[in-house]
Amino acid sequence: MSELIVWTYDWVPEGPRGFVRDLRLRWACEEAGLAYSVRTVPFEGRETNHLAYQPFGQIPFLSDGGLEIFESGAGLLHLARQSDTLMPRDPAGEAQTVQWLIAALNSIEMVSVPWWFLSLSGEAENGLTGWVGSRLGQLEAVLGEREWLAADRFTVADLLMADVLRVPKVRAFGDRPASEAYVTRLTARPAFARARADQLAHFAAADGNRSGAG
Amino acid sequence: MSELIVWTYDWVPEGPRGFVRDLRLRWACEEAGLAYSVRTVPFEGRETNHLAYQPFGQIPFLSDGGLEIFESGAGLLHLARQSDTLMPRDPAGEAQTVQWLIAALNSIEMVSVPWWFLSLSGEAENGLTGWVGSRLGQLEAVLGEREWLAADRFTVADLLMADVLRVPKVRAFGDRPASEAYVTRLTARPAFARARADQLAHFAAADGNRSGAG
Repeated sequence: MSELIVWTYDWVPEGPRGFVRDLRLRWACEEAGLAYSVRTVPFEGRETNHLAYQPFGQIPFLSDGGLEIFESGAGLLHLARQSDTLMPRDPAGEAQTVQWLIAALNSIEMVSVPWWFLSLSGEAENGLTGWVGSRLGQLEAVLGEREWLAADRFTVADLLMADVLRVPKVRAFGDRPASEAYVTRLTARPAFARARADQLAHFAAADGNRSGAG
Repeated sequence: MSELIVWTYDWVPEGPRGFVRDLRLRWACEEAGLAYSVRTVPFEGRETNHLAYQPFGQIPFLSDGGLEIFESGAGLLHLARQSDTLMPRDPAGEAQTVQWLIAALNSIEMVSVPWWFLSLSGEAENGLTGWVGSRLGQLEAVLGEREWLAADRFTVADLLMADVLRVPKVRAFGDRPASEAYVTRLTARPAFARARADQLAHFAAADGNRSGAG
């Protein structure tokens, strides 16, 4: 019996809803048919109130029986070992999946998230614009030639890369038809729709609790 | 018999020598006692000349028999599965190691590398300075309380985190005595010294070849 618990915030403002990173773990559980429950830590005071669980004050983290795992990428790798829906079991397929999962984190998101962060100041261009354009262009070339990143099939690497690419400002960056088709295809999966709807419902219910408590 | 091959550039300028990321894979092989050889792709034209191996034009990549793996983090995880010197075999120890390896890539390096990149323009502060200070401070709190990141022992997560933190501008950021002691301790390991000396010798030999060819 699964004891999987996905930890997220008790509430967030409207802006990030649908993009909070617990969605990565929810989506993976939905793809794999893994039962899970959701628990929360307070959004208010998040910089300090759960450092014992997550030393950078972030969510999500994952509990699985006695294991506690932070970093969404590490949680995804943990879930992938439990289901070959998420990662093939042959050495080449597993190596490709891990490689592209890390590429999503360290070759794309390492540039796209800081670029996005700097763009919040309102400037259309910043010191990372050239770099993010170069990386997204290189990825566009890859996605123009194949449907999936690893092993000729859906894997957790596609789940993570699509989640990195679907951030609105990143998705709107330049004209990248293969990447747009990829994001559209991945986010059309029923497991994504369920995960997103569940996250939206979770935070909407928190609105009700807050107004009731007011 | 090992068929491990670490791929790097044939030559790089003096500046990055000792910090080129093939060092991560060399260091891991040295720690684990895994025999490996080194092959090269040209530094000149690196943006386009090896995209078939590495879609972002980067090095290192790792060959292991029929497997080809890019992303230094993915290469480290592949090596870690071959040696419990790099990663414990119990589920909790493995989960902690993977978690901290991903944290090095996606919670520290995701901020420190773009911050460093922006700092190349010569400005002492940039739009990422506050964020990198916050992350390095949170990590300092962790390192103030323990010697190793995962499983109370050296793992590949320490190897990678130390390599992220030893970048000179990152190492010099603020007053972080526990982080400094950690980097000093990790880079004092004989396996690091061998890996670094081998990288320096590799590029120094290339200088000789270039002047000879001139």
